[in-house]
Amino acid sequence: MSELRRDPIHQRWVVITGQKWEGLAQRLERPRGASEERCPFCPGQEGLTPPEVFALRNPDSRPNEAGWTVRVVPNKFPFLRIEEELVRTGEGVYDKVAGTGAHEIVIESPSHEQDWDALGPAEIVKVLQAYRERSESLRRDVRFRSIIITRNYGPGLAFLPHPHSHIVALPVVPRRIEEELRNTREYHQRKERCVLCDMIREEMRDGRRLVGESGSFVAYVPYAARYPLELWFLPKGHAHDFAATADEGLLELAELLHGTIRRLHTLLPGPAYSLVLHSSPFGSHAEALYHWHIEMRVRLPLAEGFEWGTGFFVNPIAPEEAARLLRET
Amino acid sequence: MSELRRDPIHQRWVVITGQKWEGLAQRLERPRGASEERCPFCPGQEGLTPPEVFALRNPDSRPNEAGWTVRVVPNKFPFLRIEEELVRTGEGVYDKVAGTGAHEIVIESPSHEQDWDALGPAEIVKVLQAYRERSESLRRDVRFRSIIITRNYGPGLAFLPHPHSHIVALPVVPRRIEEELRNTREYHQRKERCVLCDMIREEMRDGRRLVGESGSFVAYVPYAARYPLELWFLPKGHAHDFAATADEGLLELAELLHGTIRRLHTLLPGPAYSLVLHSSPFGSHAEALYHWHIEMRVRLPLAEGFEWGTGFFVNPIAPEEAARLLRET
Repeated sequence: MSELRRDPIHQRWVVITGQKWEGLAQRLERPRGASEERCPFCPGQEGLTPPEVFALRNPDSRPNEAGWTVRVVPNKFPFLRIEEELVRTGEGVYDKVAGTGAHEIVIESPSHEQDWDALGPAEIVKVLQAYRERSESLRRDVRFRSIIITRNYGPGLAFLPHPHSHIVALPVVPRRIEEELRNTREYHQRKERCVLCDMIREEMRDGRRLVGESGSFVAYVPYAARYPLELWFLPKGHAHDFAATADEGLLELAELLHGTIRRLHTLLPGPAYSLVLHSSPFGSHAEALYHWHIEMRVRLPLAEGFEWGTGFFVNPIAPEEAARLLRET
Repeated sequence: MSELRRDPIHQRWVVITGQKWEGLAQRLERPRGASEERCPFCPGQEGLTPPEVFALRNPDSRPNEAGWTVRVVPNKFPFLRIEEELVRTGEGVYDKVAGTGAHEIVIESPSHEQDWDALGPAEIVKVLQAYRERSESLRRDVRFRSIIITRNYGPGLAFLPHPHSHIVALPVVPRRIEEELRNTREYHQRKERCVLCDMIREEMRDGRRLVGESGSFVAYVPYAARYPLELWFLPKGHAHDFAATADEGLLELAELLHGTIRRLHTLLPGPAYSLVLHSSPFGSHAEALYHWHIEMRVRLPLAEGFEWGTGFFVNPIAPEEAARLLRET
């Protein structure tokens, strides 16, 4: 049974899932992605996953059979369970919460191999619609404080090669989001403006770090990028809630993501990258302050280590150079 | 020329070193550790590094020649330079600091291959003495606000295989340390006690997460460990400043580190791990509150990605299980 733990010096929630070491040691020797078993995310294998909670499918197909274009299922190996009762307790100086939450998988297309560079915007927008529908549904559970959507693609990042995303609903607010909220709030108290709105205006005025834009969305390399290839995707106008985005907005975003990921595949064949969607937590009294966005990081095989433990990043590539490279590819 | 950058939403300093993409792309194709060039850290190759700033050596040997047991040199490829003038400026909504700092390398022993499991505590203590001497020297430069010491060992973490550590003096306080300071201060305001002193008492009373202890040091797996194998080493009594540790204390610490790293090499042959030393920043008015410590993380070849972007960690192994494993190895 999972639990969420927090210590008073870092104030950071960690999910402890409580496996045995022997099981982990086996996984280290035989990575899951390398197995030759049947892919549970491919059409025809629907019986290998828990029953779907959402799907976009041909009108003449039936749930949990082939005929879908996007399919959302509960994770078979969730690190948080929706059935778990929400119990918050202390343990000496520490905080503990039972592992309540939801952990769903978005199977993004029937294709086992095609990344978003090969899918068109019309297909990517369906994935974004699945994100939106599931976010709307999960937030109705009053136990949840935030929803995180992540998408890991490529070797070393994704557990299974078939492209998929994770939707996780949490009874706590992750530290990164809490930090963003705190800094957003402080800035607003001083200036009566949203800090990300100001940053977007600055980036559009300056232009050196811009990678792409549409009528209502923009993509740029952040001024203080932590990694050689790091990107943000944001709505130009103030919006705290991803789930309130209309279909036209999602299509613009899909086009921007598609174009960027296509360039990335040209620049670095066989890339590994992560996307994470940050939207306003619920009941945070900061809905009006927060500005939702997607962060993207490309994983490069560089030695790390200094960053870990210090929170201090060394990025060899200037954001202006990274943006130029992505614009010109 | 490097610079430190910070944005108002994350308040996290990033060093941008400003290489060209082409140079990085070459490094991606030909990792440095795999080269067959002469190792610049081996005895007899002293001319390949900048002149030493500290060494423990045979009385009849001369500086920058063989005969040393520990040798400290400025990094040939520093990401911060001590010659750089300290200039703090703004750039729109952003903050910028010229890349002032010191970046030194501690070459830990003449042996190209032996990790601390093979060295004895009497040799490890010399490395710790080098950390202390250089910390004392660097803090006299009033431009520096903090010193971070990290040690990365093993494939994918260390740039060069010859065991070495980094000492970095910074004109800013890294975010991780700043967070620890803030939480330490808040706790002290409520309880008039050091939070790490309380955590140490709790760990010694509970015992399930203890890995080792000596008269004045303790090693345990933290309650909210982020990684399957994560360890902390701390002085039992309150002490804010690593550099004030006497030789007897360093020897106890060396013994504890040696024993733990030996177990790690037995448990996981050819491990990759990082150590980072957190000591009180200078001029922080929190010297009395901070409790210095060493954090250790073992890198396992597991898919990551969810952690990134959320600050939300999923650890498959319970800290109690990890501690039991390390105690019993």
